[in-house]
Amino acid sequence: MNSKISQFIANNQISTPCLILDVDQVERNYNQLHQAIPYGGIYYAVKANPALPILKRLVALNSFFDAASWEEIQLCLDAGAKPSQISFGNTVKKISSIQSAYKIGVEMYVFDSIEEMQKIAKHAPGSKVYCRLIVDNLGADWPLSGKFGTTVDHAVELLIQAKNLGLDPYGVSFHVGSQQTDPKAYTAAIEKAASCFTTLAAQGIELRMINLGGGFPIRYREDVPEIEEFTTAIQQSLLHHFGNNIPRIILEPGRFMVGNAGIVSTEVVLSSKRGKTNGPRWVYLDIGRFGGLAETEGEAIRYQIETSYDGSTTGPVVLAGPSCDGVDVIYQKSNYQLPLELTAGDRISLLSTGAYVSTYCSTRFNGFAPLEEYYI
Amino acid sequence: MNSKISQFIANNQISTPCLILDVDQVERNYNQLHQAIPYGGIYYAVKANPALPILKRLVALNSFFDAASWEEIQLCLDAGAKPSQISFGNTVKKISSIQSAYKIGVEMYVFDSIEEMQKIAKHAPGSKVYCRLIVDNLGADWPLSGKFGTTVDHAVELLIQAKNLGLDPYGVSFHVGSQQTDPKAYTAAIEKAASCFTTLAAQGIELRMINLGGGFPIRYREDVPEIEEFTTAIQQSLLHHFGNNIPRIILEPGRFMVGNAGIVSTEVVLSSKRGKTNGPRWVYLDIGRFGGLAETEGEAIRYQIETSYDGSTTGPVVLAGPSCDGVDVIYQKSNYQLPLELTAGDRISLLSTGAYVSTYCSTRFNGFAPLEEYYI
Repeated sequence: MNSKISQFIANNQISTPCLILDVDQVERNYNQLHQAIPYGGIYYAVKANPALPILKRLVALNSFFDAASWEEIQLCLDAGAKPSQISFGNTVKKISSIQSAYKIGVEMYVFDSIEEMQKIAKHAPGSKVYCRLIVDNLGADWPLSGKFGTTVDHAVELLIQAKNLGLDPYGVSFHVGSQQTDPKAYTAAIEKAASCFTTLAAQGIELRMINLGGGFPIRYREDVPEIEEFTTAIQQSLLHHFGNNIPRIILEPGRFMVGNAGIVSTEVVLSSKRGKTNGPRWVYLDIGRFGGLAETEGEAIRYQIETSYDGSTTGPVVLAGPSCDGVDVIYQKSNYQLPLELTAGDRISLLSTGAYVSTYCSTRFNGFAPLEEYYI
Repeated sequence: MNSKISQFIANNQISTPCLILDVDQVERNYNQLHQAIPYGGIYYAVKANPALPILKRLVALNSFFDAASWEEIQLCLDAGAKPSQISFGNTVKKISSIQSAYKIGVEMYVFDSIEEMQKIAKHAPGSKVYCRLIVDNLGADWPLSGKFGTTVDHAVELLIQAKNLGLDPYGVSFHVGSQQTDPKAYTAAIEKAASCFTTLAAQGIELRMINLGGGFPIRYREDVPEIEEFTTAIQQSLLHHFGNNIPRIILEPGRFMVGNAGIVSTEVVLSSKRGKTNGPRWVYLDIGRFGGLAETEGEAIRYQIETSYDGSTTGPVVLAGPSCDGVDVIYQKSNYQLPLELTAGDRISLLSTGAYVSTYCSTRFNGFAPLEEYYI
């Protein structure tokens, strides 16, 4: 755990469950990514953690923002961002949200269907638009299913129609899936994007932008490739396809920007042998799948755990949340081991939980209040 | 849809997504269950929907309450319930919650492990306790996994130890799984409960209560057995095992009490053909898995849908939520069909969504506010 956070815990009486996030670490992450790919525009994926102190710090660093809703756009404005720094990056937008965004000057919108593009043409006329491509999500721990994106052929057709409807066909986007651990996923996706550029150029439409999405992984229990492995693969692929004429590059990091900046502090509510079997102990925490750990669904994201007994003898455990819901099991198949001494009332830390925790948290499932949040 | 709710929608300008719940229907459900099993104490599972108007109505009907947390106990007290009407029905309780509940006079506590029972013995001395048995959840659409309950042998051992620690070994409980459609599930579970009674009686411990849990199903897309089929099976099983000496019977209905009393009104944000394929349309709603429809995980609970075009030509659809999360797909495999005319801006209703929706809802995922709630 980072020393700023451990000092904060030591010096304050904080109740559990809570999220503690070091905003300086967000700045270090931003700078690391900026240095690795200096020509890339960093559009922070606000949905990863929309807390005001994070947004304010990123505004100070001249970051851009990827917003999923009109409500997230408002949060960015509250933090001091200009509308021109914000992309409306959800392929599914309410008409009223498009109208509101257009009215205050948001310039860039995404679509992946004729129906959404027509909504943008009508309610945000003349705007820069980009079409989301569907790409392989192999290698991602939190993939995106078939919910978003369309084929290269269809994207080409839609971007031509977008121009005919008075929009500015600005570029294409894709998303290789969240917590993507294979740099080659970007190479394959950039090839698809490049083919849109070529086909449309032959028809007199010059795209100018590729949005590489997010997906950069962070370390949970296992090592992941360094960010430079991804940016090198991206750089090589861009040079291969575009030579000296590289379009504007946009990145949408969320997890990479805030994940390792935060930890969840939680209390063991019960550690029980559960009968006379030789099975693992069950350790029940005061946070579970409905208290913010939604990404443990299917045990997709496996957080690293720190306890005050680390170094002592451990044994296998099943980890579960505090609710009466049978689905609220965190890890049962992922071979977690925790110290045998661990007992009810002890505090433990779930590391790298700065992204996609506070916002997934339910309003009051089983009566439990949302976790507290501390930005330091 | 029930006419009181449709009139409310017609007469009010309500924004989506929202939950509208008819509290009179809750009363009808309570009375139906009470008539079907008049000797059963009805402990409403507060977690299904803890809204104050529901709790107040149930207090007026002399209902009891099953609380999952100290916070839910407080909600019951706020609604006018007496501590003696409340059971603390979570096998995983914080010590501070046990202390608080004991202090105000809550008399009944559950456990399924030695560790939890010792916590109760220390912090709620002398209380009535019951041990949760693990039983088969076959036939349940929302089963409970291995998270709760212990074997008959172990339960017997724990109840003896409970007595030795000064607790009152009151009975046993089980849960056949939520949305259980097979009445025989109760028969098999009651047999297990009865064997605890017999074994303990031989050792001088007279249990006096069986808590049958919840699980009674309601109609979603498919018909389910009437409640009387369940209560008849329960009655026969109790007579078979206990003759004229039937112990106190407790029921913990949640879904059965409030599910069919509520509907979710939601707006179609986008209806799109998603490319040039012949696949189904994708219909994106302004509520999804993280806006309250958590029980659609794995498409376990399949809500019935009403639109204003019902009766016109339909076609297959995939239903998804409004967030940028690929996991936020509601129904992809369950063969949903919706009218071809349905388009962005139309409102549709998800029926029987009164239970397990409002509380699962996330605080602000993707910036979206929790759904509004109307109790009429």
